[in-house]
Amino acid sequence: MRNHEYWYSEIHAKGVKFSLGAEVLHQEQTSFQKLMIMKNETFGVFLTLDGYVQLTERDEFIYHDMICHPALAVNPDIKRVLIIGGGDGGTAREVARYKHIESIDMVEIDETICRLACIYFPRTAKVFTNEPRLRLMIGDGVGFVKHAPDASYDLILVDSTDPFGPGKGLFSREFYADCNRVLTEKGILINQHESAFYADDALLMKHAHDKIADNFPVARIFGFNMPTYASGYWYFGFASKKPDPLADVQLERWKDFDLKTRYYNADIHRAAFALPTYVQELLQSDWE
Amino acid sequence: MRNHEYWYSEIHAKGVKFSLGAEVLHQEQTSFQKLMIMKNETFGVFLTLDGYVQLTERDEFIYHDMICHPALAVNPDIKRVLIIGGGDGGTAREVARYKHIESIDMVEIDETICRLACIYFPRTAKVFTNEPRLRLMIGDGVGFVKHAPDASYDLILVDSTDPFGPGKGLFSREFYADCNRVLTEKGILINQHESAFYADDALLMKHAHDKIADNFPVARIFGFNMPTYASGYWYFGFASKKPDPLADVQLERWKDFDLKTRYYNADIHRAAFALPTYVQELLQSDWE
Repeated sequence: MRNHEYWYSEIHAKGVKFSLGAEVLHQEQTSFQKLMIMKNETFGVFLTLDGYVQLTERDEFIYHDMICHPALAVNPDIKRVLIIGGGDGGTAREVARYKHIESIDMVEIDETICRLACIYFPRTAKVFTNEPRLRLMIGDGVGFVKHAPDASYDLILVDSTDPFGPGKGLFSREFYADCNRVLTEKGILINQHESAFYADDALLMKHAHDKIADNFPVARIFGFNMPTYASGYWYFGFASKKPDPLADVQLERWKDFDLKTRYYNADIHRAAFALPTYVQELLQSDWE
Repeated sequence: MRNHEYWYSEIHAKGVKFSLGAEVLHQEQTSFQKLMIMKNETFGVFLTLDGYVQLTERDEFIYHDMICHPALAVNPDIKRVLIIGGGDGGTAREVARYKHIESIDMVEIDETICRLACIYFPRTAKVFTNEPRLRLMIGDGVGFVKHAPDASYDLILVDSTDPFGPGKGLFSREFYADCNRVLTEKGILINQHESAFYADDALLMKHAHDKIADNFPVARIFGFNMPTYASGYWYFGFASKKPDPLADVQLERWKDFDLKTRYYNADIHRAAFALPTYVQELLQSDWE
């Protein structure tokens, strides 16, 4: 007998549905989005926003490894970090593992997520209570970056929802231009970058990439196997004013940090930036 | 309005379901397995055997790129190829693109698949009618390899179902030992190797890897993003008596073949063999 009440489902593409047997733990309409917290036999507790899985206990290590560690391997001297979104705390948790990092500012638009994460996702949210370098601000990331001083961060991590709903502004040309201004000379921007297989996702990826490439001399994407996201493979953008994610990576220095990771490693760093031919062609195409 | 009759579903793990809206084109119980051919809005025509998606028009290029081209890049002098399974013809189609290959023997246990592929999957099955180097035999691959002469093939591609049902024998220690005997000195064995994320699949992968490593001095696995397979990421095994898939790869010679591919390329070759830490640990573990 199944121990769940119903199947939570999301449509990944036309006629393509991914479902998780779910026991509902909490649901509410916040000021920004429809939030649900459920529990699944395989993935444990999971969070959905506006009908898309954001986080599961079982595979969050993959997403959080990949949003954080590649940037620190390219520039191990990063001191000041800004996180936009990431209300569950997982991204901040990974950043906080680097003892030399001086400050972690985090701007989450929806305080409900942080509050509920403390109850339902203690493994990611404990960073909110035990990390003195973390400054959590509730507010709009777009506005925050717009008013932040020039060259005030070494790294910006955009841990956002998709380019519609509350996350929309985080995929705009103006936002990327502000990120560029706010970053230091060797600054790096990592952002949620959708996926390349299904046509709708691929179009969003293409648009985001084009806008980032207009604002940064280095604009690459890198991927990872994320079982609960559409097509099973997701991408982050890597943009910088200077460092190249492969030519300038300092994997020996990264290894010296001696962090135990379950997905990311030196081989995966190089591999993640290798793109299937159809993805290379998507990024180079004139498709709009 | 949806243009399909019902949702075809498969369970990828406990409480995890993947569904395709489907119009049923054909179904039958063959002598070996329950076969269905359906059509989906996103994936086109697709084939299932015993309730698992084997092939879709939309993503078969990924699987067939990855089962074939890495081996030819490691040993571009491969002349004699044996395919076990692969009844849809896609693997043979990719092998046949190498004009210097002299013979392609193929042993498929279930003639129904080849016959129906000619009707429903012309893009993969056309190789059956237009390729004089292909010798298609209907029979048991395990028995075929058992009785094949020593050192009679440069490459064996095992394009099989999972390690239960008719595909079971293709994951046995005896079969791998026979493959070793039948391969030439620089011979390579590529086989379907399950996936690493969900516990049940990971156990099958671990068992297969251990048995192959007992029979071949070089035993590696490599992965690729396959949207219709469980977790979205699938692996093949690369085993050989001698060539190493990274140290001995001849990517410049492979590029000289000038084959247009949509997934595989020189970067992807190296990247595919990079394994997430949790997969490395799985393969090195004593888990049984």
